[in-house]
Amino acid sequence: MEDVAIIGVGQSNFSRKCGVPVTELCFEAYREAMTGLDVNASQIKASIVCSSAIDKQRSLEGPVNNYLGLCPSPTFMVNNACAAGSSGLRIAWSFIKSGLYDVVAVVGVEKMSGLESREVAELMGRAYDISWESSFGVTMPAGYGMHARAHMEKYGTKEEHLAGVRVKNSFYSQMNEKAIFRKLVTLEEVMKSNPVAPPLKMMDCCANADGSSCLIVARGDVAKRVCNKPIWIAGLGAASDSGLSQRKSYTSLSCAKIAAEQAYAMAGVKPADIDVAEVHDCFTIAEILAYEDLGFAKKGEGPKLIENKDTYLEGRIPVNVDGGLLCKGHPVGATGGSQIRTIVRQLRGECGPVQVNGAKIGLTHNVGGIGHYANVTILRG
Amino acid sequence: MEDVAIIGVGQSNFSRKCGVPVTELCFEAYREAMTGLDVNASQIKASIVCSSAIDKQRSLEGPVNNYLGLCPSPTFMVNNACAAGSSGLRIAWSFIKSGLYDVVAVVGVEKMSGLESREVAELMGRAYDISWESSFGVTMPAGYGMHARAHMEKYGTKEEHLAGVRVKNSFYSQMNEKAIFRKLVTLEEVMKSNPVAPPLKMMDCCANADGSSCLIVARGDVAKRVCNKPIWIAGLGAASDSGLSQRKSYTSLSCAKIAAEQAYAMAGVKPADIDVAEVHDCFTIAEILAYEDLGFAKKGEGPKLIENKDTYLEGRIPVNVDGGLLCKGHPVGATGGSQIRTIVRQLRGECGPVQVNGAKIGLTHNVGGIGHYANVTILRG
Repeated sequence: MEDVAIIGVGQSNFSRKCGVPVTELCFEAYREAMTGLDVNASQIKASIVCSSAIDKQRSLEGPVNNYLGLCPSPTFMVNNACAAGSSGLRIAWSFIKSGLYDVVAVVGVEKMSGLESREVAELMGRAYDISWESSFGVTMPAGYGMHARAHMEKYGTKEEHLAGVRVKNSFYSQMNEKAIFRKLVTLEEVMKSNPVAPPLKMMDCCANADGSSCLIVARGDVAKRVCNKPIWIAGLGAASDSGLSQRKSYTSLSCAKIAAEQAYAMAGVKPADIDVAEVHDCFTIAEILAYEDLGFAKKGEGPKLIENKDTYLEGRIPVNVDGGLLCKGHPVGATGGSQIRTIVRQLRGECGPVQVNGAKIGLTHNVGGIGHYANVTILRG
Repeated sequence: MEDVAIIGVGQSNFSRKCGVPVTELCFEAYREAMTGLDVNASQIKASIVCSSAIDKQRSLEGPVNNYLGLCPSPTFMVNNACAAGSSGLRIAWSFIKSGLYDVVAVVGVEKMSGLESREVAELMGRAYDISWESSFGVTMPAGYGMHARAHMEKYGTKEEHLAGVRVKNSFYSQMNEKAIFRKLVTLEEVMKSNPVAPPLKMMDCCANADGSSCLIVARGDVAKRVCNKPIWIAGLGAASDSGLSQRKSYTSLSCAKIAAEQAYAMAGVKPADIDVAEVHDCFTIAEILAYEDLGFAKKGEGPKLIENKDTYLEGRIPVNVDGGLLCKGHPVGATGGSQIRTIVRQLRGECGPVQVNGAKIGLTHNVGGIGHYANVTILRG
């Protein structure tokens, strides 16, 4: 099945305020993705723009596709809340595998600085069922706060475990020049940060950001011709879940578990085979849930991975060694592509101070909403 | 290539105000699409929700997928302005053809009644480049008005030709119980209707609407097993265009021409082989441009098809014999699916008073923006 490859990856700086239109913001990632490839714009047969369209510009796909010089190739916009980026990759894979196209660009973007933070929170709240969730005050931090509380009550997880995730990710973000927060924080600083949705505090939460990502995806034969080191799409998994009020458990994100099972089966690998992973740490608790949902830890034992430094660079399974959403920032539609970019660069051996030695198989875990959607992707070098 | 079929089609009533949440609105189309099929919800492996999300509910795909009972199957939202519905079908085809899934639901929906008309006009204007189009006042009617003026100046097209499109479509809408406008209008009534964006008048324009559509799409072997009369996807074409200010000509929509060429080539048919067509008549001029862009008439001779009644039921190539967008109403994300539904029903011979006798091959032409996106789909009975 490994006949579709990622041949180029790019990302803009993630920032609090990019100061340019979404079109130019996308170009920043596209330029990096195309650098060094023997491919020009006319060879890109379709583009997929992944975004929640929080910026004033609606239907971004048209202006972006045109600005990148890709007309008259068709363009499609995919919105899947915070999972849009990896959903776009899934669609690109299908377009290529089905025989429609041989080279497809997946552009993820969000410009969130045009609105006030409270407006963004309100808009993002309306991404979940407005009849049963946001209307009762379930914002993103509130929803993940409930998951954190449930995990603490059932498994004895401590606030210090949550804080430990932020400490780890802040350590690695020091080496990521495209991250928003590049300062190492201490456990004490996280624990003393202001409460947001208890037990989650300010430093347990990622930040809104402006940013873009770009993936150039190609059929295997083309990939081998135009690129020195194609990275192969080995496994794909995707699932959804109901609204929070209908769920049986808050100690896991069931759609992430299902998506992971699908991706492992398609790639023919086990959790222990993964050399490096990027998981959707929109909140610290989300990274701990991911450890368990992906099978890196047994149920309830996710916090041990933080205690034992298993997910540090030298550990058993390095996770989010680019700083994660917590430190890079989370420009919704761009996040999935940014995760893929990190894994592609790891599998190419391009990660310098945060390189996982000899990484051959990598995984991304991209979640939309409060576990409403999940995509798990497995890549092979 | 004809190994993906449409096995079920449904549509809600199109109305000015549906009075229900978007989830229930979608269920109305889904119920019709599933009726008579030997398929249950658990066999639907993915859903694609097509919408511009003009309603307050954002990321509709989660609440809709859950309401239809499709969790934990994954769901993806596609926004492609007014072309979203057919873009969703294209993605469903790719999902199936690539081997990912065997049965996929494509749900199109728009609930526009929650906002004032001027708010809708403003939101839809922002679907085109906000730096170069809507900021200078290019609304949808204005953009198509410029195309109408250009066609009149170059080819001698008369306002009466435009009006004739509305007269034809209103004639057939009398037989469509799901259309908003079901009253026959006269040429004089259209000509005397109030100016909107000259030469376009009120009756040259379609209306905002609440509505949904649903297509159940399946791999060929499954289709043959669960459905008496699968309708095969024979040809697909898709293309994009720049913003208006960069275009060389306003007398054609170049992306529709390119998409049509692709679809004809894939299906191995010519324009003369098409027995019945649904074209994107968001404005009367758009139907005349479609005649030419699809090759039903030579360049500049589209108006003759109206003069000669060639696109009436008894004519050479019946077009929009369900009333078209002009009379059905245009609930953005639902429109592409509604067009496909009409063609599927024609190819099944289920169209009663507007049945095209012996129709074997049908076509849909679904345009987003002012010719920013186009999908052409060819179906075979």
